[in-house]
Amino acid sequence: MKIIDGSITSPSGYRASGVACGLKKNGNRDLAMIVSTTEASAAGIFTKNVVKGHSLQRTMSVIRQGYAQAVIINSGNANACVGPQGLADADKMAHLLAKRVGCADSQIITGSTGVIGQPLNMEAVTNGIEIAWNKLSSEIEAGHEAELAIMTTDLVPKEAAVELEINGQRAVVAGMAKGSGMIHPNMATMIGIITTDLKVDPKLLRALLKTAADRSFNRVSVDGDTSVCDMVIALANGASGIPEISSAEDELAALLLEAMETICVKLAKMIAADGEGATKLIEVNCRGARTAEDAHQVVLAVGKSPLVKTAMFGEDANWGRILTAAGYSGVDFDPDKCNIWLGDLMVCQNGCALPFDEDEASRILNHKEITINIELGEGEASDRLWTCDFSYDYVKINGSYRT
Amino acid sequence: MKIIDGSITSPSGYRASGVACGLKKNGNRDLAMIVSTTEASAAGIFTKNVVKGHSLQRTMSVIRQGYAQAVIINSGNANACVGPQGLADADKMAHLLAKRVGCADSQIITGSTGVIGQPLNMEAVTNGIEIAWNKLSSEIEAGHEAELAIMTTDLVPKEAAVELEINGQRAVVAGMAKGSGMIHPNMATMIGIITTDLKVDPKLLRALLKTAADRSFNRVSVDGDTSVCDMVIALANGASGIPEISSAEDELAALLLEAMETICVKLAKMIAADGEGATKLIEVNCRGARTAEDAHQVVLAVGKSPLVKTAMFGEDANWGRILTAAGYSGVDFDPDKCNIWLGDLMVCQNGCALPFDEDEASRILNHKEITINIELGEGEASDRLWTCDFSYDYVKINGSYRT
Repeated sequence: MKIIDGSITSPSGYRASGVACGLKKNGNRDLAMIVSTTEASAAGIFTKNVVKGHSLQRTMSVIRQGYAQAVIINSGNANACVGPQGLADADKMAHLLAKRVGCADSQIITGSTGVIGQPLNMEAVTNGIEIAWNKLSSEIEAGHEAELAIMTTDLVPKEAAVELEINGQRAVVAGMAKGSGMIHPNMATMIGIITTDLKVDPKLLRALLKTAADRSFNRVSVDGDTSVCDMVIALANGASGIPEISSAEDELAALLLEAMETICVKLAKMIAADGEGATKLIEVNCRGARTAEDAHQVVLAVGKSPLVKTAMFGEDANWGRILTAAGYSGVDFDPDKCNIWLGDLMVCQNGCALPFDEDEASRILNHKEITINIELGEGEASDRLWTCDFSYDYVKINGSYRT
Repeated sequence: MKIIDGSITSPSGYRASGVACGLKKNGNRDLAMIVSTTEASAAGIFTKNVVKGHSLQRTMSVIRQGYAQAVIINSGNANACVGPQGLADADKMAHLLAKRVGCADSQIITGSTGVIGQPLNMEAVTNGIEIAWNKLSSEIEAGHEAELAIMTTDLVPKEAAVELEINGQRAVVAGMAKGSGMIHPNMATMIGIITTDLKVDPKLLRALLKTAADRSFNRVSVDGDTSVCDMVIALANGASGIPEISSAEDELAALLLEAMETICVKLAKMIAADGEGATKLIEVNCRGARTAEDAHQVVLAVGKSPLVKTAMFGEDANWGRILTAAGYSGVDFDPDKCNIWLGDLMVCQNGCALPFDEDEASRILNHKEITINIELGEGEASDRLWTCDFSYDYVKINGSYRT
């Protein structure tokens, strides 16, 4: 497996484009299109929020069939909470693209991200689909432009690709994502698209995607599944010519999982680092927990704590807040066995303050990437999570999002 | 029941003082003392965090006896996570005061709030106890000074008192609290002290305190019980001369509960309004839930959402974030039946955007107190919660708390 520079058009048989159709007031790209030359196996995971965006609701039924050929995603408007018109608009988006692709409407994946509760400007979308269709290209750059078109408050594009060599043949797995890994990242909508030119059984693709996402996107700040428009989609069109991977027992399934996980972890860390107003990427590790669920609860409580996150922004080695957050996580543990490190610097031993070198702590906290390590001493289970610090700019960005 | 200007010394038989002994670097008051002329029934509720401050741990065993005579609380240092020295220091604080009061050490309630993980400066505390003892007074002003001495990031003192007339005799219930009702208010430590000159059976006092706190302090932003030093203590010394209230069936018990709840709700709203960096008090109401627990989960999710709180700071009627937060609260409800109001202005009907007057919304959101009303249409249960908005200053205050 080799990490390469690439985009979602790096695997064979995919064309993409990203254009500005007028949904974003600032004139930035806001409509992304991806078209596979042939029908692809398709898998998806979706928000667990009881409120669901209309474009996403539509896509859930597409994915149930296991196959799709193209994707259309708009940013600038979530197409959520607007009543029956929302589903009609999503259907129309799909129909307009399906007509051009020459496939059934039910082969089109739709997604939307942005402000909730405002009807889509369908005139803009209709024109946009025309323009995007004419710009479709299999160049790497076209994938980059699709990525730009799904971004909202993201400051940097998030893309990753890996190359696999299988029996002398080349295959590529690539991904792009949008989302800002802030306190409730998933409220700001996380969308991820994975493309590969491998051929994969849809059920297996779903299982691999679920595992990869659990170890990546679902480890950014919160347990995922909270925004009304969150989704991660995987497409596998088989254009590499490599025979289908159809069983989890197949060693190629393990290789594909490794590739998908590598891409998803890279994207997830980029999401966390690009948190709204974020200045630092924070990795929270919990080891020595009694159960995996315990470890998960601890990293969640610490990674979500605004007090921990503001302390990291202030580069303040206030480990008491880390221990406090672990303490209210709902996990039963003996604080007298708990150790905490900032990077490699132990700051709390057996639940007690350890005299530590504040200069050394400052050096560690001054980095763009900070690791918090918590050892509970209760068992063998562990978990990790990525988040970001909490800055003035977060408040600024979110205080006037609609305007 | 009559609301009066007062302090925790307004009930008969209590003296108090609040002095500066040097624990706070800025020279503000940091040691509060309350002494009852006689032993009082004592009840307490405490943090459920598995990590507990040493002064609080000690007080938990005092309260188990049901009686106490005096209280000593320091601010500026949490006396938490410092190892065996922490309990020894709490014991010493209690002993120094008990010697002067002439009671057993086990009649002294101890509390600490401030930075975690640093040993108490016991020389300062020892001197402080001497000074505070000499300043004890039953004047209302002495109660105010005790309140000032328990404050940390609080900007305004929080006190309330009510007068009761019972068979021609006067009794008073009073309270003071500290705490900043921010996202995780209880991490910033909430301490409350209720005093009354009624005589109350300790078990009944505990039950009344629990109910009053559940409807007030445990309705500020989070479900309570998260900081390592949180506690609410009630003392009832009987100095009014009114016969003991010993049964929940007694109509005086209902009157006392009403008084305690009135005081606790006033203090809780002051805590929420005085959130770190807060500019607005937000009341979140959920009606029409299937169960009380459902209603509670919804107000919690909405009241804790940083995106809702930043929108309120920005005076942005972004109701989509309110619906989204309700949607990820874990409560199963049909969004198509959900209505949302900002104050009296309906902004979302049956889960859909309602065209509303943005000027009217701006006027409502421009107030210092904002009410968010959510109607689920699933049943009859309701709950409410107080929180505050989320501003630039929150980040500033919490980015460098230790320095």
